[in-house]
This record gives sequence, structure tokens and C-alpha cells, in this order.
Amino acid sequence: MAKEKKWVYLFSEGNRDMRNLLGGKGANVAEMTNAGLPVPPGFTITTEACNEYFRLDGKFPEGMWEQVLAALKVVEQQTGKKFGDPENPLLVSVRSGARVSMPGMMDTVLNVGLNEDTLQGIAKLTNNERFAYDAYRRLIQMFGKIVKEIEAEKFEHILHTYKEKTEGKKDTDLTVDLLKDIVQDFKALYKEEIGEDFPTEPLKQLRQAAEAVFDSWFGKRAVDYRNFHKISHDWGTAINVQTMVYGNMGFDSATGVAFTRNPATGEKKLYGEYLLNAQGEDVVAGVRTPVKIAHLGDEMPEVFEQFVKITKMLEEHYRDVQDVEFTVERGKLWMLQTRTGKRTAKAAATIAVDMVHEGLISKEEAVMRVTPEQVDQLLHPIFDPEAKAKAHESGSYLAKGLNASPGAATGVAVFDATRAEEVAEGGQDVILVRPETSPDDVHGMLAAQGILTQHGGATSHAAVVARGLNKPCVAGCEALSIDLDARQLTVQGQVVKEGNDISIDGTTGEVFVGQIPTVEVMYREQTEMIELLGWADKFRRLGVWTNADYPRDAARAREFGAEGIGLCRTEHMFFEEDRRPTVVRMVLLSKETNNVEDRIQRLEADLEKASGKKADEIRAEIAELKKNEARNEYFAAMDELLPFQREDFEGIFEAMDGLPVIIRLIDPPMHEFLPSREELIREVTELRCQGDDPKLLEEKEKMLRTVEAMDEVNPMLGLRGCRAGIMYRGLTAMQVRAIFQAACRMAQKGVDVHPEVMIPLVSHVNEMKNEKVALEKVAKQVMEEEGIEVDYKFGTMIEVPRAALTADQIAELAQFFSFGTNDLTQMTYGISRDDAEGKFLLAYVDKKILPSNPFQVLDREGVGKLMKTTVELGRKTRPGMSIGICGEHGGEPSSIEFCHMIGLDYVSCSPYRVPIARLAAAQAAIREKQGK
Amino acid sequence: MAKEKKWVYLFSEGNRDMRNLLGGKGANVAEMTNAGLPVPPGFTITTEACNEYFRLDGKFPEGMWEQVLAALKVVEQQTGKKFGDPENPLLVSVRSGARVSMPGMMDTVLNVGLNEDTLQGIAKLTNNERFAYDAYRRLIQMFGKIVKEIEAEKFEHILHTYKEKTEGKKDTDLTVDLLKDIVQDFKALYKEEIGEDFPTEPLKQLRQAAEAVFDSWFGKRAVDYRNFHKISHDWGTAINVQTMVYGNMGFDSATGVAFTRNPATGEKKLYGEYLLNAQGEDVVAGVRTPVKIAHLGDEMPEVFEQFVKITKMLEEHYRDVQDVEFTVERGKLWMLQTRTGKRTAKAAATIAVDMVHEGLISKEEAVMRVTPEQVDQLLHPIFDPEAKAKAHESGSYLAKGLNASPGAATGVAVFDATRAEEVAEGGQDVILVRPETSPDDVHGMLAAQGILTQHGGATSHAAVVARGLNKPCVAGCEALSIDLDARQLTVQGQVVKEGNDISIDGTTGEVFVGQIPTVEVMYREQTEMIELLGWADKFRRLGVWTNADYPRDAARAREFGAEGIGLCRTEHMFFEEDRRPTVVRMVLLSKETNNVEDRIQRLEADLEKASGKKADEIRAEIAELKKNEARNEYFAAMDELLPFQREDFEGIFEAMDGLPVIIRLIDPPMHEFLPSREELIREVTELRCQGDDPKLLEEKEKMLRTVEAMDEVNPMLGLRGCRAGIMYRGLTAMQVRAIFQAACRMAQKGVDVHPEVMIPLVSHVNEMKNEKVALEKVAKQVMEEEGIEVDYKFGTMIEVPRAALTADQIAELAQFFSFGTNDLTQMTYGISRDDAEGKFLLAYVDKKILPSNPFQVLDREGVGKLMKTTVELGRKTRPGMSIGICGEHGGEPSSIEFCHMIGLDYVSCSPYRVPIARLAAAQAAIREKQGK
Repeated sequence: MAKEKKWVYLFSEGNRDMRNLLGGKGANVAEMTNAGLPVPPGFTITTEACNEYFRLDGKFPEGMWEQVLAALKVVEQQTGKKFGDPENPLLVSVRSGARVSMPGMMDTVLNVGLNEDTLQGIAKLTNNERFAYDAYRRLIQMFGKIVKEIEAEKFEHILHTYKEKTEGKKDTDLTVDLLKDIVQDFKALYKEEIGEDFPTEPLKQLRQAAEAVFDSWFGKRAVDYRNFHKISHDWGTAINVQTMVYGNMGFDSATGVAFTRNPATGEKKLYGEYLLNAQGEDVVAGVRTPVKIAHLGDEMPEVFEQFVKITKMLEEHYRDVQDVEFTVERGKLWMLQTRTGKRTAKAAATIAVDMVHEGLISKEEAVMRVTPEQVDQLLHPIFDPEAKAKAHESGSYLAKGLNASPGAATGVAVFDATRAEEVAEGGQDVILVRPETSPDDVHGMLAAQGILTQHGGATSHAAVVARGLNKPCVAGCEALSIDLDARQLTVQGQVVKEGNDISIDGTTGEVFVGQIPTVEVMYREQTEMIELLGWADKFRRLGVWTNADYPRDAARAREFGAEGIGLCRTEHMFFEEDRRPTVVRMVLLSKETNNVEDRIQRLEADLEKASGKKADEIRAEIAELKKNEARNEYFAAMDELLPFQREDFEGIFEAMDGLPVIIRLIDPPMHEFLPSREELIREVTELRCQGDDPKLLEEKEKMLRTVEAMDEVNPMLGLRGCRAGIMYRGLTAMQVRAIFQAACRMAQKGVDVHPEVMIPLVSHVNEMKNEKVALEKVAKQVMEEEGIEVDYKFGTMIEVPRAALTADQIAELAQFFSFGTNDLTQMTYGISRDDAEGKFLLAYVDKKILPSNPFQVLDREGVGKLMKTTVELGRKTRPGMSIGICGEHGGEPSSIEFCHMIGLDYVSCSPYRVPIARLAAAQAAIREKQGK
Repeated sequence: MAKEKKWVYLFSEGNRDMRNLLGGKGANVAEMTNAGLPVPPGFTITTEACNEYFRLDGKFPEGMWEQVLAALKVVEQQTGKKFGDPENPLLVSVRSGARVSMPGMMDTVLNVGLNEDTLQGIAKLTNNERFAYDAYRRLIQMFGKIVKEIEAEKFEHILHTYKEKTEGKKDTDLTVDLLKDIVQDFKALYKEEIGEDFPTEPLKQLRQAAEAVFDSWFGKRAVDYRNFHKISHDWGTAINVQTMVYGNMGFDSATGVAFTRNPATGEKKLYGEYLLNAQGEDVVAGVRTPVKIAHLGDEMPEVFEQFVKITKMLEEHYRDVQDVEFTVERGKLWMLQTRTGKRTAKAAATIAVDMVHEGLISKEEAVMRVTPEQVDQLLHPIFDPEAKAKAHESGSYLAKGLNASPGAATGVAVFDATRAEEVAEGGQDVILVRPETSPDDVHGMLAAQGILTQHGGATSHAAVVARGLNKPCVAGCEALSIDLDARQLTVQGQVVKEGNDISIDGTTGEVFVGQIPTVEVMYREQTEMIELLGWADKFRRLGVWTNADYPRDAARAREFGAEGIGLCRTEHMFFEEDRRPTVVRMVLLSKETNNVEDRIQRLEADLEKASGKKADEIRAEIAELKKNEARNEYFAAMDELLPFQREDFEGIFEAMDGLPVIIRLIDPPMHEFLPSREELIREVTELRCQGDDPKLLEEKEKMLRTVEAMDEVNPMLGLRGCRAGIMYRGLTAMQVRAIFQAACRMAQKGVDVHPEVMIPLVSHVNEMKNEKVALEKVAKQVMEEEGIEVDYKFGTMIEVPRAALTADQIAELAQFFSFGTNDLTQMTYGISRDDAEGKFLLAYVDKKILPSNPFQVLDREGVGKLMKTTVELGRKTRPGMSIGICGEHGGEPSSIEFCHMIGLDYVSCSPYRVPIARLAAAQAAIREKQGK
């Protein structure tokens, strides 16, 4: 017969690498045991035993129980106690422990081994009868609930009844006699529910507890938890059987928790607290105020010295901050648990950098020790944590919206942009509150400390602009009801009027009434993080560029480490107050201009074939058409815009001296520049009804007709992007002229310029061809006019599924690709971000129909597949072509990892996400190297 | 040295299979020559010679000219004439002739070999000096223009000046003397333009003419034509050098054209006309009225007998109707050309079927002889061709829009649906003219003969409904300006008022003012086509199903040969007048219902874990929530709709007894059922201004708020399809209940039902899972209630790119796929069909940015790639799963071919396209078999 399978490991037989077999808890306790630390002796039943148990339909695998009994014997020897011995009884805890921590999801039974006999031994040994009875009632209660699934309430009800009889009505007020009665009542309840007596045989207790722990692996809560966290159901749980120790055996006993360094600041100093004569749960429960750990040095100098030595050893051993639990039982220190300590963002950076300097970890490890979310936290103001907790307690929490742009802000609520500007100029902090925002609101957003909207998702106008401005924003807070006329918002009856204080947390999406103080953070002061990011830069392969429309953004992004501009939008420039009238004029004249130009083009084609009198006639007609007033006004408007555009670009080229700048030609539907249709209908109807200003009515009616003619049912899929470039005469040519004039002139001033022109919304190679051929001609002409050559490229956004599918064709013309994953996600999913987030997308995520919001975390299976196809096809045609991403996902860590995996050259994100992207890109590279 | 390459083929050396080498014309003339027909002798210079000529930068390849001279010698022997012999001169034509016909795109020079000397010989031989000089001036003119590129106008100007001197001012009025002067002037012009004398050396003429023909291959017109028709530039052209024959040598000469069968009716009878003493161009020019071909039997009985024999032989030889050109020169019949004769739809079907019965061609060939477009023509009324031509001449043509639904219609213009109904009831034929149509207009569309809209594309509401109703429709006719208040339309100043006659041709998109008589066609009377389609059915592998929402459509489609319903839309049922108020009520109550139901669901989850008093509290709260008025009204509205839906389905199941019926659950955004936002704004503004009906104002304001809350920026990508199914409680469950109640009850009556439930707009497998699991439960419950099991399936539309990309996952749950290529095209291209067609898509096609409108012809490179992926992934998961198409493309021949190629099981199209699809599917299968 083959050697019997090993189902049970003494703590001394395991180590931390045996996590899969022994579970996380078992592996760590084994590690500590073998490191010679004082760990209460015990053993672990393996996860394999658990799986075998299920395979056998709920029977222990052969030999397991015998191995348990053998291990128990060893523990008895180690402790000098005996399981079930009334004189000196061994009591044990039976705990689950899976490969990864599943907090609160599985079950524990304490004090196993207690019965009426052993109880007496404990009472005698501890000289504390109350302690013994309390432990016993806890065993019956836990065993009843967990092993036998008796409703917890039934035990609580009995306990409650007895507590009511005492003066203080608390657990601690229960006398020994009352506890004895409780034990009797518990046993009676047990018998009534289960139909048999509570097992007094310690081995029977142990056996049933072990079965219950195994069974809990397929309990509903645990299954739900694993489904949610995508944890395999095949892993199984281990069981840890460990000698009980007690911190409440008198004033030579204590219990406590500690971190090896300060988890809030990262300071290298033991941090924690303890209580004398207490159980572990007392430290947490807050019944008594715990004492700072340093004080233990006064109260138990020897124990403390040992403890300090152990924690130092543990930190060095695990090479990270440890969060330990300990108990002192009658002067003897026991280490119960050690695990990696959670920490704040600030502490994470400090600890990682310090540990490198201490020689404890490598730079690579340090980079992996800080999460991108922590970097994000470091760059935004946050609410003072205590003040925020108080705000929650005091009921000033109003509602939760989408965490659209991180950071906290507080100020007076103002309901329109112009008023927001005024109030801000008056020196007050403002939160701009709008149903949704549009380009008309940008001046108000600039003036405000934060933005709150009722509608719109993570990529709504408000959200995108706020992130660009690095202002906190809570978007799509549908619980609000905003009344613009009354200048107030209402949430479930509570009214906030204009001028009232409100506070928003863009990191969490929470909205509060009243002021909550914020804590500011400055990038330049984050010296540890800056050092860490410097190391990250060495590991990453992805470039990190930025999306910036203005010189000031470009400069800031550069400070944050951006290596180029991946997206400079040009439409914002058209929205500036001083240019808007010109733009509107241009749009209004465009239709007639188009007709005239079409006619001219056809005539010019005819002219090529004609001669003599006929040719003269054609020439005359062309000359006549060129006098068309609308057409000439249109082109005059275009000429007016040119110098504005050129200036915009000059500043950006200067700020990005030596780095590439990708400028996207105009993208949004042109009717966005016109007044809204609904507003015009209202005005026209009113003017008609009042009947006193026929001239204004006529003007408004004309505007309405134009707007209606340009109206689109689905503007996102309408006349925009390169389609507008192709249909609006001379528009993109003007832009390219401005770009190259700016580039040439800055180059002449000694700036190293690298303009890259990006043509948006290409769906067919011919669109790219049409625009590129025409525009490159303009570029060359400008360079000739200016007398200088600059390094340039023409490329395209990949944001339409068809462009991805035909990337091989498009790469024939495009010198670079940049993924516009906002639109690509919208079209691939068939989901309009403006509409969906409030109306069904968040509900989808809530109902787990979608794993996450695809506008926040890149959808690898769908959108990602198209991206992969694009990279393959594009580089097949044009080997080594530069491919990046400039959608919102370019600043999101999981999406950045995917970009790394499929071989992009860079990610481009808003300036404030540049540091995050640098870290995320480095982590992706390191994980790849580690084969994870 | 290797044998010299053969560049020149005598007509007797070629045959019809040498089209690539000799060009179409050369191959056919060779074929006729070898069939022993009287063809004027000649030879062909190969396309290879042409390509070599370009490779050598415009030099004839080595040996070519020598071979030409040798061939010329043979022709001289054959004709007994000599090139350049003043006594009996050989004259030749030099014509281009490429592999495929490129009408008018390349060049011809006639009468080569004429000069002052040979001219005399011709004059003497023909006894017609005028004829000789006229031929000579034609040579100089053609040679000057084509070979030397002298502007045609300059010759015309001289000719014009001389004609002005004659009485009749026509070519035929020019006397010999005038012609002699013209020849002198032409020669002078030639010398002035070219700087040398017109070449009198016949061989020089021949050489230069041949060079000119080769050069014309890369002429601008020819290059453009090939680019447009996607013809390779590498093919090159052949040159045909052929002895000139003349039908204008007196009354023993004639020229004519004929078809071997009647090309209008298909009748098996020689059809054509001729003129005595005339040139070929005279027959076409209409200067003299040609005589019916039968009359030639009286005038030249022997020639006619020979001609009849030859045409019969040609038809048998080519096994198709031939279109021949002939000339009789002094009593001798010469065959100049033969080619396959063009024919009407009617004739095509008749000829194909007749030829099978005559044993001339196989059934397979017959199926390939009729185009799907011809089948389409056969099923729709057309304008009387003569009346239409007259309408064009008389200037009653107004404008051209999109040919949205085929067929011709004429009637009085009416500008709203209700009035259209009234006028139609009054017995007048009506054309409904609208800016665009909406479901509110359907009753007017039903009453009208045809529909004309200013906006909207090939898949706009008007177009889709019109095709479904088989009514002619011209959509997106942007040239119109419609004034609904004035009840008139204007096109470039011309006004059509309500009640005026207009005519629309939905096959071509043309719009006319006034009445044009139409010619009706009935399917049942198309016996030849019905026979042909019967044969087609044997060859095709694709099934042909239909899109039908009503029993009457289903029945009609079945008559046309449909083998199932591929798409039964359920939303039309919600739009019916009598159901609309209930639907509106339901939509208005949905938000509150949703909130209540969400709350109930959460409480029910809590209840599972709770017990005792707490459980009682939860139960009480649930009971209270279930009393919510809005919720109960909502579900009551749903209950009201159920019987309506059930009745709809019963009729359809009955009509499709024994065949599968795919029913798509509700798809459009629910706010489509509410009043329009713009209309409400108008009403509210007016009511506010008037201030006299506060109650109505309040009601309208409330409705407006609801509509605005539901408003979507891009409704196509919003809350619709399965998203609505998931978010609107009980809606799709009600539909599935209705479907299965109908199916079970019809099954009990003995109908063989096969319901297939189609879940629309799935983008993530979890949506499919969510709906399928819930709805299949309903289906099973209904079958249990009804006490009968029916055969059923659950499947999904593939209409979102992401669904295509993850088809392997979705196929885990979906039992069938059906491509919704309308939406799939919109999302893959990022183009909204409603907006794009008028605004830029037609311009794109016009500017050749797109090869065709992707909403009409399936885009194989983009959308098609996704379809291919879907088929591969879907069948990998579920081998052999049924996959079809139900988008508009399912009735378009090129798209059908693609569906065949990628292995779909069926195409589904509107009833009237079923016959077209049957033929197109057969042709795709045959082409595949033939390896084409």
C-alpha cells in the first residue's frame, strides 16, 4: 500500500509558501512557529482534505481523523495539557483559512474542548469561575449557531433577557450565577432545536466543528463572495486547530494589536494599542479605551522588550510592515497572527522608499508596494477624515453620485455659471450645481471649487472637463432634484438653496450639506512619491503622454512627467467667448457656401475639358459665384479664426519644447456651437404669443430653422470628426495652416517642435486619404511660405469599430494611431455614455450584469479585442508604427496594463493622472517580467 | 533566337475565348469569321502588345509592326484591294477593344488609308465623288482630334461656317465643292496646329492611329472610368484593324441593327430596323425614319434570307439573344458586330425560360440570365416609359431623392397623414409628402399610393415602412422645401400646392410634377418568373425567410416563397391607435414602479436571512409596497396589453403553419411612445404665455418633465432593446407570455407552431443570460398552464459590434443568431442612418469616398468581417447553430451573396424582396460552384 496521504500539518511542519495547501492563516502561523516565535501550538487540516471531503459527499478522507488525533497528541505534549482532561484541559479554536482572505465569510468556533468537567478545571486553574462559565456559554452559542445553524437571534434573545435583569444591562454585568442559568437555557434551546443534547464529548465537538468549517466553504455568503471576487470554488478551505490562550486571565494578562510602522504617516516606529486583562474583541469594541503600545514598556517591560524584538524580526522576515495580534497570558507573550499591514497612500510611499534606503527591499519591489489609487489620493485634497466621519454621524450626508473627478471640495451652492463666477470673484468658494454642464458653463467651472451635476456619466461634459481642470466633480447624482428657477436643489425633502454650504467628495461620489474642512496636498511636496516614480520610469516600457488643450495644462503635465501631448483638442478653442460669434457666423453660412463651392468645383472640372467660348462662359460663371456674399463672409470668418488658433498652438509648442504634440482636428458636431433647439422653440413661441417684436421673431425663427435643419437624432454618430472636416469647406485646412504657422514660427525662435496632426473619426480609409492628401499639401505650402521645415506626422484616431477592423488599409496613410477608447467603447458596446450611465449602466454594474463600468475600466473582451486587431493589422502594413491611447482609459491602471500587454507605445491621460499612469505602466512591466 | 512573340492575330486566328488577349470586340469578330459569317476581313493587335508598348515608354514591341504589315497583306489578298492603291484602295477602321466594354471611353479612327490619290479611286469605284470627299474630311477630322488631340471645336467651327452657307444648314446639304473646300481648310488647320502636313501616306496614318488607340488606354476619361468600375489598369486594350464597308453606296446598300428576339417582350421573333443607302449612324440619329427589319425581306429577299440564317446561327452559337449590326454594301451582306442583347425584365424571364424549353440552355444558365434587379422590376408598377420620357422633355421633372422603396406612383400631394386618409377615402390617389414620417403617420402611409419625404435615408422610418407596405417611396429629397403651414412644397422656385398632382419613381428616386400613367404588374401573372424561381430554389443553399409583423404580410411573403419569419417586430403593435394610451400610461408609471420593485427585491433578499419579528416587519413592508398605486396601475396596463399581443401572434402563427417564426422582443427606446419634447415645449410656453388654463399647463408641464427626464442625446445607443427589457419590469415577460399563450392555443387547434424568441441589442453575454433565464421560466410556466408543449428557441440579434466580438460567449445561451445589419452597420461605421444619408453619406458616395451606401450594400470589409467572426465564434461554441440575417441587407443581392459565402443559413427580407432573394441566393450558389 502506498504511503498514506498527509492531510494534517503541525504548525512546525509548514511555512509561508504553503499558502495553497494550508491557507493564508495556516501558512503564516507555521512561518512564525518555525521562526521560533511564541505561537500557541496547533495544526492545520489541508485544503486538499476539504476538497476530498466534498468529493466524498461530506465524509472526511481516509486517515484524516487519525492524523488529527495524532497531531492533537503532539499539541498536548507541547502544551502539557490534555484535551478533555478535567484537571488541566486543552482548549482549542477551530478556524477556517482559505488561500486568500475572505473576511467574515467563513466560520470559527472557539473554546472547543469545554464541558461541565473541563470547565471546572479551567475555573480552578484560572481561579475565575465567571471566566470559565462565560467561555462555556460562548462555546455553546457559537457551536449552536455555526455547527448546527440555530438562528443566532434565539441565543441573543436569551442573553438579552438575562442582561435586562442586571443593573448595567451589559455582558460584563452578568454574574456567575446568571451565566450558569444562561448555560442551562442555551443547552435547553440546543436540545429543543436539534433534538439531542449539546455534545459534551470534546472530540465530538472537534469533529463537528471541523465539518462545519468545511461546510461553510459552500455556504451562500462564501459562494456569493467568491463569485463576486472571481475566486475559484475549487480552492477549498483549510482548518486551523490552535491552543486557546486568554488575555483576560488577570492583570498579568493583556491583548493588543500593533503595526511595525505608523500606517498613517509611514514613520518608522511601532504603532498600536493594547488592554490589560481583556479579550481581543474588547480592544476593537471600544468598551474600554485601549492604551498606546509604548506604555506596555512600563507595564510589562520584559514582555515589551520581547515583543519589540519579535516585531522587528517579523518585518525583516516578511520585508514589509506587519500588522500583528498578540496576547499575554499570565505574563507569557503569544503571537496570534501576523499579516501585511494596510496603510494610507502617504504611508505607502514613505515606507516603500524608506525600505529601499534601508536595503530591505529592491526598487522594483518598492514600485509594486504602492497602488496607482494611492498615487491618485496623494494628488487631491481630501476631507479631513474626522470631520467627514462627524458629518456622516450628524446626518448631513445627502446623496451619492458618480465619483467623476477625484478630490474634495466645499463651498456655497450656485446654480448657474455666470453667478458662480460672480460669487467666486466676491471671494467665496463655490460649488457649481447644474442639471448637466455644457461648454457654456466652462467659465463657471473654472471659477468653482467643484462641480455637482444631476445627470451625466463618468465621461459626461462635466466629468471630462472637471478632470481636465483637476477639480472635484460628482456627476449623475440622480437623487437630486434641481429647480433652476427657484435656485435650489431637493433631496428627499431636504432643500439646499443657492448660497447654502455644500461639500462634495469626487473620490467617493458623496454629497453633504454644510462645510467639511479639506486637507490640501501638493505634488512638489510629495518627495517620496517623486523618488518612487523616478524608479518606476526605469521599469516601464509604455510612454506616458498627456491630454492637454492649453499651455498651462501642458506645462503642469510636464512637471508631472509627461513625455508628449497625446491629445490636444482644438474645439475648446472655438468655444472661447471672444471667438464664439465668429464660429456661429461661420456655421450659419456653411450650407450656402457648400452649395456654391460644389458648383464651382463642378465647373472647374468642366473647364478642363472645355475651350473657346464655352470656356469663357464657364470662367465667367465661376467668377460670379466667387462673388457670393455668404461664401465670402464664411471664408472671412475662417480667416478671423486663424490667428486665434495659431496663438493657441504657439503656447503649446513652447511648453512642449522637444516633445511630440498630437493635435486633433475639430471633432464635435458643428451644431454644438449654435443655440439650443429647445431654447429657440421657447423663445419663438413666446415671441409669437406676445406678438410685439416681429423683427426679433423673424430672426429667431430663421435661427430655429437653421438649427432644426442641422439637428441630428444621434449626434454622436452624425456629421462630426473628419466628416465635418470633409463637408465644411476650408475648416481643417485653416486649422492645419494655423498649426504649421505656429510650428514654423516657434521653430524659428529655436523651439524644437514636433507637430502631429490627428484626423478624428475615420471609419473608411478614403476619409483618411481625402483629408491627408489635402492637408499635407497645406502643411507643405505653409512650410514653404515660412521658409522652414519642421518634423511632422499625419495620423488618425482609432475610435470607430470599422477603423479598427480595417486598420491595415488605414495604416497605408496614417503614420500613427491613437485609440479614442471613449468613442470606441460607445460604438463597440452600442452605449451612449451621456445617456447610459444614469439610465441603466450603473444599474447594470449594480446588478452585476457588467463587471464594471466600461467607460472607466477598459473592456478587454470586446473593445480590447478590436484594439489588439488594430495593433496587429496596423503594424503589418507599417512595421513599428507608433500606437497610443488618448481616451479616458489612458489614466486607469487596469486599462494601462492592457495597453502594455498589447504593445502600445504610450498612454496619454489628463495631467493629474500622469503620475498614476507612470506607476501603473511600471507595474504592468514588472508583472509581465514576473510572469504574472 | 526564340520564336518571335505573336502580337497580331488575323480574325481567322482568334475565337471568343481569347477575350483577354484580343479584347471583347476582337474575340467576337474572330468567332464570327471562323463561323463562316461574312465579316469584313481584318486583324487584331493584342492587349499584350499594348502593355509592352507602355513598358517600352511608347514604342511598339519588336516585331509588331512587321506582323501588322504581314497581316495587312493577307487582308489585301482576302479583299482583292490594296492599301494605298489609287485604283482599288483598301480602307480600314482602327478601333480600340478592351477585355470588357468601356463605352465611349476609348477611340476609333475610320477611313484610314484615304488620301488625295486613293480618294479618286473610291470616287471612281463608287461613282460618288461626294461620298469620297465626305469620307476624307471625316478621316482628317477624326485623325486630327483623336491622334493629334486638336480641339474638336475647331473642326466643328469650320464645318459650321460652311453649313451656314447652305440652304438647309445640314451636313447633307454640303455639296462636293464645299466638301473640297472643307478638306482644304481642315488640312490648313491641321498644319497650323501640328506644324506639319496631314499625313497622306496610308501606312503612316495606320501607325499613328494605332499609337493613338494605345495611348487612349491611359487617357483621363478611360482611367477615371476604370477607377470607378474597379477595372484593372493592367489589362490594356487591343486594336482592331478592319476593312471598311459602306451601306451608303446606293440603293443596293443598307445598314441596320437587329435583335434575335424581341428585347421588350422576349417574343421569339427577329426585331430590328434598317435604312437603305445609309451609314450606321443614320439609323441611330433619327434623321430618316428606319424601316422594320421584316421589310428587308421584300426589298432584298436574298440578303434577308441569308441574314435570318446568320442571326439564327449566332443565337444558337452564343446560346443567347444577339444584338447584331450589319451593312449591305452593293448587295453583299457584311456582319459588323454581334453581342449579347440587352433586354427588359419581362423579356429576360421569358427568354431564359423559353430557351430552357427549347433545349438551348440549362436551367442553371437560365437562372444566371435574369438579374435580381429585373425580378424587382417585375414586382412593382412602373411609369409608362414613353410618358416618363415625355415628362422629362416637358420639364416637369422636379428633383431626385433617395430611391427608398421601388415602384412608381402618381396622385395629389397631401401634406399630412389624416388629410391623406380623407382624400384617399374620397377616391383620389394620394402621394403623402412629409418632412419625415413617424409612427403617427402610418395611417396616412397606408392610405397613400406613395410617400415622399424631405429628410431621412434608405432606412428611415418612411423608407422601412414603405418597403414593408410595398409602396413606392422617395426619401431624403433635400431639394424640396416643405411648408406645412402653407401646405405646399417648393423646388427652386417651383411651387406644388396641396391637391396638385405629383408623381414619384421609387425605383430611381425621381420626382415629377403632374400625372404620369403607371403600368401595373402582378406576381401571379409572372408565370415565366415563377417557373424560373422554382428552378432557382433547387440551386440555392441559403434559406429565404421574411420580415413580417402582421398576418397579412406573412401570408403574402409565403405566396412569394418565404420559408419562415426571420423578424417579427413587436413594437408596431404598441403603436396601434387603440393601444397607445395604455402604452403611454405604462411608460409614465415605469420609473416609480422600478423604484418600488427594486425596494421589494432588496427586502425579499433580506427576508431570506431574517427571522422572527424582523422577518415580520419586512413582510409588512413588502405588503405595503405592493399596494403602491403607480406600481399596480403599471402592471394593470401591462395586463391590458397582453391579450392584444396574443391576438397579433395567433394570426402570424396561423399564417406560418409549419414554419419557424422569430419574434423580436420590444426594441425601440420607450420614450418614442411619448409626445415629442419639442411639441410639449411649444405647448407649455404657449399655455404659460396665455395664462388661462393653469390646470392644463400643470398637466403638460408634468408630461414635459417626464419626457425630459427620459430624453436621450443618442437614443439609438440608449435605453432600448434588451436594456429596456431588463429595466422595465415585466415588459418582456408579458411579451413572452403572449407569444407562448398564442403558440400553445394555436397548437391546440392543430397549427404546427415554431416560436423563436429573439432578444435584441445584446452587447454582453450577461444581458442574454439575464433575459433568457427569466423568460424561459415564463415560457415553461405558460406551457404548463396551457397544458401543451411547443417546440421553441431563444436566440439573439447580433447588431452590436461587441456581440459579434464575443459571439462565442453569447452562443453559450443563444440557440440562434440573427444579424441586425442595420444597427450593426451604424455602430461599426459610427454612422447614424437617420442623420447621415442626407447630411453627408450621399455626398460621400457622390465624391467616391465610399464605394456605395453601406445601408444598402453590405460593407464586406468592416461589417462583413464582424459577421464572419460571429459565425466562426458562434459555431465554435454551438456547432451547427442557426445563423441568419434580418437587416435590410437580407434583400440586397450583393449582400445575399456575402451571406452565402460566410455560411449563413438564411436571409430574411421584406415580403416583396423574397423573390429577389430566392434568385440572388441561387446565383450565389451557382457562382460559387463555378468558382467565380
